[in-house]
Amino acid sequence: SSSSNLIRATLFPGDGIGPEIAESVKQVFTAADVPIEWEEHFVGTEVDPRTQSFVTWESLESVRQNKVGLKGPMATPIGKGHRSLNLTLRKELNLYANVRPCYSLPGYKTRYDDVNLVTIRENTEGEYSGLEHQVVRGVVESLKIITRQASLRVAEYAFYYAKAHGRERVSAVHKANIMQMSDGLFLKCCREVAEKYPEIKYEEVVIDNCCMMLVKNPTLFDVLVMPNLYGDIISDLCAGLIGGLGLTPSLNIGEGGIALAEAVHGSAPDIAGKNLANPTALLLSAVSMLHHLDLNEKADQIQEAVLKTIAEGKYRTGDLGGSSTTTDFTKAIIDHL
Amino acid sequence: SSSSNLIRATLFPGDGIGPEIAESVKQVFTAADVPIEWEEHFVGTEVDPRTQSFVTWESLESVRQNKVGLKGPMATPIGKGHRSLNLTLRKELNLYANVRPCYSLPGYKTRYDDVNLVTIRENTEGEYSGLEHQVVRGVVESLKIITRQASLRVAEYAFYYAKAHGRERVSAVHKANIMQMSDGLFLKCCREVAEKYPEIKYEEVVIDNCCMMLVKNPTLFDVLVMPNLYGDIISDLCAGLIGGLGLTPSLNIGEGGIALAEAVHGSAPDIAGKNLANPTALLLSAVSMLHHLDLNEKADQIQEAVLKTIAEGKYRTGDLGGSSTTTDFTKAIIDHL
Ligand SMILES: CC(C)[C@H](C(=O)O)[C@@H](O)C(=O)O
Ligand SMILES: CC(C)[C@H](C(=O)O)[C@@H](O)C(=O)O
Repeated sequence: SSSSNLIRATLFPGDGIGPEIAESVKQVFTAADVPIEWEEHFVGTEVDPRTQSFVTWESLESVRQNKVGLKGPMATPIGKGHRSLNLTLRKELNLYANVRPCYSLPGYKTRYDDVNLVTIRENTEGEYSGLEHQVVRGVVESLKIITRQASLRVAEYAFYYAKAHGRERVSAVHKANIMQMSDGLFLKCCREVAEKYPEIKYEEVVIDNCCMMLVKNPTLFDVLVMPNLYGDIISDLCAGLIGGLGLTPSLNIGEGGIALAEAVHGSAPDIAGKNLANPTALLLSAVSMLHHLDLNEKADQIQEAVLKTIAEGKYRTGDLGGSSTTTDFTKAIIDHL
Repeated sequence: SSSSNLIRATLFPGDGIGPEIAESVKQVFTAADVPIEWEEHFVGTEVDPRTQSFVTWESLESVRQNKVGLKGPMATPIGKGHRSLNLTLRKELNLYANVRPCYSLPGYKTRYDDVNLVTIRENTEGEYSGLEHQVVRGVVESLKIITRQASLRVAEYAFYYAKAHGRERVSAVHKANIMQMSDGLFLKCCREVAEKYPEIKYEEVVIDNCCMMLVKNPTLFDVLVMPNLYGDIISDLCAGLIGGLGLTPSLNIGEGGIALAEAVHGSAPDIAGKNLANPTALLLSAVSMLHHLDLNEKADQIQEAVLKTIAEGKYRTGDLGGSSTTTDFTKAIIDHL
C-alpha cells in the first residue's frame, strides 16, 4: 500500500468534543479502508495576522491544496480584534454553498416521519455582510447585500445537486414581497437557472409560509435554496425535525472545487473529554465528503453502518436517550461495516 | 338600550373570505351581547393619494378615533404606485407590536401538545424599512434599521404583557452573534427593560437555535420578543405547530392606545363566497380585542364557545378535516355561548 494512492484531506478536529468525534471518524475510516490520509490542523492559540483570526494561514493553505476537508466544532474565543472561526473559513475559502441533507433516521423516532430534504444555503453574503454602523445614537443600520454573482452561483449549485441526486424539485425561499429588490434579485437568478433545468420542478415559497409548511408537513419539500440568513434559520429548523444538529451532516462547497464538510453542532464543553459525545453528525459529514470525492461505495458503506447502529438502538449516546460511550458507539459502527 | 353605552370599533371585513368570517364575528358578538358597535370600512377601489394605498384615509381616521378595530384578510391589489395594505395600516397607525398567542386547541390534534406561548414582534422597522437600492448592476443593498426607540417600545410591551398575563419568562430572539450592532442594540434594550421586571425571567436565544428548539419542544418557551423579520418567521412557525394561521389570533398594538386585531391568514379567494371558510382566527382575534378593552368576561365566554365547538368536533370546517359550512360552525358556537 503506497501513500501515493491516498487522497489527502485536511482535518480540523476542533474544540470541546471535537477531538473525540474526530477520533471516531478516523477509526471508522481506517476500519472501512477509506483511501484518505488526514492532514490535521488545529486552531491557533493566538490571532494569525494573515487571517485576522485564530484560524492559521497554514490550515487554510492545507484546505486550498487538498481541496477537501473535514471540520469538527470550533468555538470562537471571546475577545475583540479577531474574526469568528467559522466565518473566517467561509470567507477565506469562498465557501459559497452550504449543503445540509436532512432525513429521518430509521428507528430514531421524532414527531416526523419520512423527512427527506436538502437545504442549500448561500453562505457568503446577505445579512452576513458584516457591514453595520450607527447612523446617530440609537439608530443602527445593517446592510444586507445580495449579488447576482453569488445568487447565480448558489442557484447553479442547487440545480446541479438536484439533478445529480435524482431530486425532483427546487424551492427558492425568500421574502421578496417585502424585500423586493434584494430577495427579488435572488429569485431572478434562481429563475434564470431553473430555465436551464426543465426536468427539475421549480417553485418559490415565502420564508414565513415555508416555516409553517415545514412544521406541518415537511415531506412537501425536496431541495430548498435560499439566501444566507434564511438558510441559517431553516437548516436548523429542519435539523430539529429529525432530532437535532447532532444528527445532520453539512458540506460547504467552495470555488475551485473545494469542499469542507463540517459538524454544525456546538463544541459541548460540558461533556468534552468524557467519552459521551455523539459523533454522528461528523461521521455523516465525512460521508458527504466521500460522496463529493466520488468514493460512493465507501460513503454508502459507512452511512449504512451508522444508520444501522442507531436503528438497532443497542448502542446510543446520551443525547439519543442511550448510555453508550463514544468509543462503544464507534465500535458498534465498525462492527456493522 | 342606548347606543351611548356601546363601544365603537372599526371593522375591516377585507377581501376573499373576509366578509363571511366578519359576518360570523358580528353574529357571535350580537348573540353574546357584546357592547360593541361596528363601524365598517372597506378597501377602496382606487389609490387614496393621502395614504398612497387602497386603504382610505377615512378608514384610518376611524381606527384613530375608535382606537380599536378588527381586520379580516386583505390581499394587496397587484400593480405599481401603491403600498401594501397591511404595511400601510402598520405604518400609518404606528402599530408597533404584533402579539400572537399560540396555544394547542383542546381536541384538535397536531404533532404537538400543550403549546402555550406568545410571540411579540416589533412591527415597524428591521428588514421592513423599505430602503433598498441597487449599488451597481447585480448588487443590491437592503437596509435593516434597528432603533433604540422601537426596540425599547416593543420590549416594554412584552414585559408589560408578560406581567399582566401572569407569564413567567420573556425570551429575546436575535442573531447578535452575526449582527452585533443592530441585533445587539435590540438586546441591549431588552436587557434594560428586563431589569425593571425582576419577577419575570429573561433569556436570550439565537434565532436558528430558537427554531430548532421550537420544533423539538415548544413548551420550553413562554413569551418571545423579537425584531420584525424574526417575528414574521417565528410567529408563522408557531402557528404551524398548533394547526396553522386559520387558528391563531393576532393583535397589533399602536401608539396612543390603539389596538387593531387581525386574522393573519390569507383571503383564500378559491373558497371565497362558498360558505366554507373557517372564522376561528378572526373570532379569536376579536377575543384579543375584547381583552384589550377589558371586556374579559365576554372575551372568555366567546373563546370558550369557540374552543368547545372545535373540541367537540361535530362542526368543523374543511381546513380542520370537517365538512361544516361557516354558518353552521358559527351557529354551533352561538349555541355554546
Ligand atoms: C455559529 C454561527 C456563526 C453560524 C451561522 O450563523 O452561520 C451557525 O449558526 C451555522 O449555521 O453554521
Ligand atoms: C403579508 C406580509 C406582508 C406580512 C408580513 O410579512 O408581515 C404577513 O406575512 C404577516 O405576518 O402579517
